[in-house]
Amino acid sequence: MDNLLDGKTVSNHFKQRIADEVSEMVSNGHRPPHLVAILVGEDGGSKTYVAAKEKACNLVGFTGTILRYPDTITQDELIAKVEEINNDTEIDGLIVQLPLPNHIDENLVTQTILPEKDVDGFHDINMGKLAKGDNSGYISATPLGITMLLEYYNIETSGKHAVVVGRSNIVGRPMSILLSNSNKTGNATVTVCHSRTKNLKEVCLQADIIVAAVGIPGFVKGGMIKEGAVVIDVGTTRVDDDTKKAGWRLCGDVDFDTASAKASFITPVPGGVGPMTITGLLNNTLKARKRTL
Amino acid sequence: MDNLLDGKTVSNHFKQRIADEVSEMVSNGHRPPHLVAILVGEDGGSKTYVAAKEKACNLVGFTGTILRYPDTITQDELIAKVEEINNDTEIDGLIVQLPLPNHIDENLVTQTILPEKDVDGFHDINMGKLAKGDNSGYISATPLGITMLLEYYNIETSGKHAVVVGRSNIVGRPMSILLSNSNKTGNATVTVCHSRTKNLKEVCLQADIIVAAVGIPGFVKGGMIKEGAVVIDVGTTRVDDDTKKAGWRLCGDVDFDTASAKASFITPVPGGVGPMTITGLLNNTLKARKRTL
Repeated sequence: MDNLLDGKTVSNHFKQRIADEVSEMVSNGHRPPHLVAILVGEDGGSKTYVAAKEKACNLVGFTGTILRYPDTITQDELIAKVEEINNDTEIDGLIVQLPLPNHIDENLVTQTILPEKDVDGFHDINMGKLAKGDNSGYISATPLGITMLLEYYNIETSGKHAVVVGRSNIVGRPMSILLSNSNKTGNATVTVCHSRTKNLKEVCLQADIIVAAVGIPGFVKGGMIKEGAVVIDVGTTRVDDDTKKAGWRLCGDVDFDTASAKASFITPVPGGVGPMTITGLLNNTLKARKRTL
Repeated sequence: MDNLLDGKTVSNHFKQRIADEVSEMVSNGHRPPHLVAILVGEDGGSKTYVAAKEKACNLVGFTGTILRYPDTITQDELIAKVEEINNDTEIDGLIVQLPLPNHIDENLVTQTILPEKDVDGFHDINMGKLAKGDNSGYISATPLGITMLLEYYNIETSGKHAVVVGRSNIVGRPMSILLSNSNKTGNATVTVCHSRTKNLKEVCLQADIIVAAVGIPGFVKGGMIKEGAVVIDVGTTRVDDDTKKAGWRLCGDVDFDTASAKASFITPVPGGVGPMTITGLLNNTLKARKRTL
C-alpha cells in the first residue's frame, strides 16, 4: 500500500538522528542522556511499555534505568524517590509509568516531577507552555510523535481543517493545541470532538486531517472520512484474538479497511503512531540532556 | 432589543453575590479579599483598566491596592516587588498590568507571580490546569467572565458547535478549551479559527455559538452568522470618533447591526464582555481569599 504513514520507518529515521547526536555528545566527552522510568506493581501493559522504552534508550545510546517497586510502596516513599531523582544531576528525564495503585495520587506524583525532567510532558507547567505556544517545555510524547510523522511526510497543516476526536489530557487536548498553534506542523483550523459531539460524521467529513484518539476499536469508519484526507489513528486497544500467540491483537480507533480506501495517508495499527510515541519520548529526553550541556 | 446579553446587568448580579460573600466573611471576623495591581509607566489604556479594577474592588468590599512605578523601574526591582507580595499573607491576588516597558521580560514577571495569587490566570501552572480540566487553578478573566455570562442566561453549550475566532493566550486559547472541557458551560464541539483559516465564513456559519476575539473592528459580519446563533464579541478596539468627548469609542470585532439581526443573543460593545472581565477577576480574587480561610 502506498498511502501508509509508516511509523516504524519514520521512527527509525529519527532514532538514527538521535543516536548520531548522542555519539557526537559522547565523543565530545559528555555523558549520554539518562532516562529513568519508575514502574510500580505488576501491570502487564505497563511492564511492556516500560520495557519498550528501555530497549529504545539502549538503541540510541541513552542510559535507561528502570526502578521497580511493589504496589505496596507508600505515596510518601514514591514522592521521596521522585524528589531524589529531581536532585540527581546525572539524570535528565524521569517518567512514572501510569496507572499507579489506587492509594497513590497520580496527579500529586506527576506534579512532583521537576518540570525540567518531565519528559512525558504531563506537568502543569509543560501543559501550560504548550497551551501558550511556548516551545521551551516538553510536549506529551504521542502528540509530539505525530507531529514528527507529519513533518517527515511533508504533510501540510497550515490552513487545513484538522478534526481531533477525543479530548484527553495526554493526546486529544495537546494534539488539538499543537495543530492550531503557530508551529511548523500547526496553523490548522482545528475542531475538537468528543462524546458529547452531535453529527460527528458530518464534522469528520470536513476534515483534511483527522486524528482519532477515543480508545474505541474501529470507531472511525470510511464513511466518516473525506476522499483524500490524512488519517492518524492513536487507538491501541487490546482485542482478544485466538489466532495470535499472545491471545490478543492491537486494534486502532479507525476501521482501517474502509478508511484506507478514502485516505491519502493513513497510519496502520500497529506500526503507525505507536513507534512514534517512543520516539517522541526519546526526543524529549535528548532535549532534557541538552539543557545542562 | 431583547436579544442583548447585558454584561452590565449580569456583572452587577455577580458583583452583588460576591459582595454578600465578603460581608459574611467580614462579619465572621475575617479580613476581606485583597487584590494588588502593579502599574508600570503611564500607558493610558493601562491606567484606565487598573482604575476600573480598583473601583470594582471597592464596590464589592475588597481591599484594592495600586502600586505605581515609573517606567524606569528595573526588571530586578519589579521581580523583587512581586516576590515581596508573594510572601505577604495579607495579599490574596496580584496582577501586573500589561504591557510592561520593553526592557522588562513580561513572561518572566508573570511566571514569578505565585500561581496561588495569579488571579489573571496567566501563569503556566494555571494555564496547564485549565488545559487539563483541573478546576483548582485560575482561569483568565475574560474567558471566565464569558462563561459566567453564558451561565446566567442558561445558554446551552453541551453538544453545540462553538467557533472561537482567535487563538491568543488570554482569550481565544483558554476560551476554546473551556467550551470544550467537561464543564457546566462546556462540552461543546469547538473549532478554533485564526489568521491562517481558509473559508472562515463557511466555518463561522456552522456555529451555534461564536466568540470573536481577533481585535479587528467589525470583522465578523452578519453574513458569517447562522440564524439564531449566540454571538460573543470580545473586541475592544479604540476607534477615533470626534462625536465623543474622549475623541474615541470602543469598537467590537462584530459588526453589530448586521450580526444582531441574525443572532438569538449577542453581546454589545461596550457593556457586554467588558464588565464580565472585571467580574471574572473579582471571582478569582474571592477564590484566592477562600484558599487561606
